[in-house]
Amino acid sequence: MDRIINIVVLGAGNVASHLSKSLVSKGLTIVQLYNRTEESGLRLARLLGASYTNSVRNILPDADLYILAISDNALPEFASHFHVRKGIVVHTSGSVGLDILQKTSTRIGVLYPLQTFREGKHISFDRIPICIEANKPGVEKELVTLAEKLSTNVQIINSRQRKMLHLTAVFAGNFTNYLYTIAEDLLLQYDLPFELLKPLIKQTAANVRHSDLFSLQTGPAVREDTAIIEEHLGLLANEKAYKDIYDLISKQIIQYKHQHVKL
Amino acid sequence: MDRIINIVVLGAGNVASHLSKSLVSKGLTIVQLYNRTEESGLRLARLLGASYTNSVRNILPDADLYILAISDNALPEFASHFHVRKGIVVHTSGSVGLDILQKTSTRIGVLYPLQTFREGKHISFDRIPICIEANKPGVEKELVTLAEKLSTNVQIINSRQRKMLHLTAVFAGNFTNYLYTIAEDLLLQYDLPFELLKPLIKQTAANVRHSDLFSLQTGPAVREDTAIIEEHLGLLANEKAYKDIYDLISKQIIQYKHQHVKL
Repeated sequence: MDRIINIVVLGAGNVASHLSKSLVSKGLTIVQLYNRTEESGLRLARLLGASYTNSVRNILPDADLYILAISDNALPEFASHFHVRKGIVVHTSGSVGLDILQKTSTRIGVLYPLQTFREGKHISFDRIPICIEANKPGVEKELVTLAEKLSTNVQIINSRQRKMLHLTAVFAGNFTNYLYTIAEDLLLQYDLPFELLKPLIKQTAANVRHSDLFSLQTGPAVREDTAIIEEHLGLLANEKAYKDIYDLISKQIIQYKHQHVKL
Repeated sequence: MDRIINIVVLGAGNVASHLSKSLVSKGLTIVQLYNRTEESGLRLARLLGASYTNSVRNILPDADLYILAISDNALPEFASHFHVRKGIVVHTSGSVGLDILQKTSTRIGVLYPLQTFREGKHISFDRIPICIEANKPGVEKELVTLAEKLSTNVQIINSRQRKMLHLTAVFAGNFTNYLYTIAEDLLLQYDLPFELLKPLIKQTAANVRHSDLFSLQTGPAVREDTAIIEEHLGLLANEKAYKDIYDLISKQIIQYKHQHVKL
């Protein structure tokens, strides 16, 4: 029998919104939504069919699960003032340890969905990795059961691993988007449509099916084609920031090749 | 009526191989394949139903089109010794100008497919951008007609634009793969499967449907979350190369935000 029936969600940002909508769509009940800002809080609460409060003192005391989907910066302060009698308390952060919740309940955990969420954009949770950590085997079991209702990809991961996972997501997601942004900016300056790069971007991302990704590395750096590298640095003469990135990553690709590839 | 009927392909690398297989699959005839190295040249020629030569002097003189799909480095030297009577001569390079072909024929051009090609991996040309340049309107028209048999995405692009396009492909393709490699390496060190990042990588690449990509930027840098940035730099203390990239890109994201986003 499922133990987690009534859920209180704290926060109304992107993670709170996507996660709670997904829970409701899987038949779970969000009984209450807490959010400091009334406008966004009320809007989300209505969507979920949940009651709304903007006061910590009015948070329902007997829910089965409290999901703290608030910003990393706000978590320590909030967790130091928040206590429940018997429910499980989890946060959803990639970069905050489990121990920050120690004073909130005897049953604590983490439920970290590894994806980039944006307002207004629906994302299905079906294949999103959900990383679970808990302070007790019983809590872990209940959280895994819940997470498996949302996704086919549920993983048990400790705080140390989760922090590194979050860091790698910065490289593979955030920094990648910045490289796309650079490309978009440069194409615009040459009256070229960004459309031209989309098939390449899709293919490069699709290639991660393989392991040993460096074996897929193409381009002037891995070929050590210094003539092209110099020409590219020259084309970027007026774009110091982009030139610095081109220079650093090219040098590292060459270095990586010499350190890792059997010559 | 189509003017280009008989094609000679020069080279047997990834571009030569993918391009010529695709031409044959669309009903065009590769009459001859030239390649210095006999093993790879003969293998590809057999696949294409083409004759094979490893001698420049034996290249057929009366083909309609000669495709120089040889490396950027080899192009200048090769083009200075190669002449045909009446056919069109094109190269397939993103970073080499049209003028390098000036002595090869009175009818010259470029046919640059913008994609990352790998040995053994079939890629459909249907949506790959093919960038065309030519020295005469008549040549341009013939090359466009040919390219449109391969792809629905044919663009006329001059040498200056093509060089910048190639440079942006380094950022959006090659450098992105290196960021994925870094993530793979770090996850391995923490006993985490790279699978965990695949949905994020796919979603980030799928997001390029939009324009103004910086508006999609998420993560600690764009939030100017210095506590997390410092923690991440600390986690990378033993990985100087990766730390340098994290530091540089994070600083640039913050700088870009201040320069471009209306505050």
